[in-house]
Amino acid sequence: MTPSFEKVQQLLKRLPGLGYRSAERVAMHLLIERPQDLKPLLEALEDASQHLQRCVECGNMAEEELCHICQNPQRDARVICLVEHVPDLMAIERSSAFRGRYHVLFGKLSPLHQVGPEDLNLQTLPQRLERDQVEEVVLALSNDVEGEATCHYIQEAILDPAGVTVTRIGFGLPSGGGVTMADSSTLRSALESRRSYQ
Amino acid sequence: MTPSFEKVQQLLKRLPGLGYRSAERVAMHLLIERPQDLKPLLEALEDASQHLQRCVECGNMAEEELCHICQNPQRDARVICLVEHVPDLMAIERSSAFRGRYHVLFGKLSPLHQVGPEDLNLQTLPQRLERDQVEEVVLALSNDVEGEATCHYIQEAILDPAGVTVTRIGFGLPSGGGVTMADSSTLRSALESRRSYQ
Repeated sequence: MTPSFEKVQQLLKRLPGLGYRSAERVAMHLLIERPQDLKPLLEALEDASQHLQRCVECGNMAEEELCHICQNPQRDARVICLVEHVPDLMAIERSSAFRGRYHVLFGKLSPLHQVGPEDLNLQTLPQRLERDQVEEVVLALSNDVEGEATCHYIQEAILDPAGVTVTRIGFGLPSGGGVTMADSSTLRSALESRRSYQ
Repeated sequence: MTPSFEKVQQLLKRLPGLGYRSAERVAMHLLIERPQDLKPLLEALEDASQHLQRCVECGNMAEEELCHICQNPQRDARVICLVEHVPDLMAIERSSAFRGRYHVLFGKLSPLHQVGPEDLNLQTLPQRLERDQVEEVVLALSNDVEGEATCHYIQEAILDPAGVTVTRIGFGLPSGGGVTMADSSTLRSALESRRSYQ
C-alpha cells in the first residue's frame, strides 16, 4: 500500500455506505484494475459540481436557477409537498404519485443536534404560499419524533397563519408488508391512521 | 435529477459493490450534502493515479520503480509468493504470515475468458528465480479450477525446469469455521489436505 493509495482509500471510506474493505476495492478498481474508468468519473464529478445548484424556489437540485419541477407548468403550484432532503423528493418522484411542487427543508428540527427553525429552508415558504395561492401543503417528513416536532412547528408558525390546508402523508404497513413483520411503532401508526372501509 | 447528476450516478454504479441506490447516495453526498468532501477526493484520486505504477520487479503497486516490499532488504528474496492480483498480496500482507517477496500474475488461466499464459505477468519470473537464487515458490492462487490449472501450467513451464521447490497454500476450514457450515467443496479440500496430528 502506498501513501497516495492510502489517502484515496481514507477519503472513499468517508462516503456513505463504504467501509474499509469496500473503499479499498473501489480504490483498487479505479487506480489499478480499470484506470481507464477514472478519468470519465473525475470529469463527470467535476462537471456536475460546477453545474449543480439549489433551485432558488424549492431547494431541489438544478442546473439552472429553477429545477425541472419548478420550471414545469404542468406541475400544480398550488400544492406543495414539504420534504426533509432532496433524496426524499427523488423517492416521491419515482412513485409518480404526486403532481404538485416541492419545498426542501434540508433537515428537521433537532434540539439534540442543535438544529433550530432558522437552520431549515423556511425563509421563502411564506411568500410561495401567498404568491402561488397555495391550497394544500403535504407534510412528507419522517415518521419519528423530530419529524413530528418539525411538522408541528411549521404548521403553527407558517401554515396555519397562511390559512392553507395541511395534510401529512399516511403511516402504516408498507406495501407488501404483513402485520406479523411490522414493528410495534408501525402498527401503532397504522392503527391510529385507520379509515372507514367500504 | 439533472443530466450531470445522472451521469455521475451512472459512472459510480460501475464501481465494484455499488448499485443503483448506493451510487445515488454517494453522488448525493458528494454533490449536494457535503460538496466540501469532493475536492479532496478528486485531488487524491488524481494524485494517486499520477503516482501509482506497477513495481517493475513483482507487479505490486508502487510509487517508485520498485514497491516497498521489493525495496526492503529484510524481505527474503529467495521465497516468492505467486498471487493473482494486488488485493491478494495486500490480504496476505495483512496476515503478517509471509516474509518473502511476491510476484503478481494479474489473472489466472481461463480459456473461457480467453486468458492464456501470454496474458499473465510471467515474462520476468524465470530471471527472478535465477538471479535471486529462489529456493521456494509459494502458489497462493485461488482454490478453483482455473487457479489449479494456472498452478499446474506454471509449475510445468517455469518452476520445475528451474529446479525450485514449489508449495501451495493450504485449503480447508477457514478460521473459526465449523464443519457443519462448510460447503462440500471446502470439506473435500480439507479432507484431502489432512495431516498427521500429534
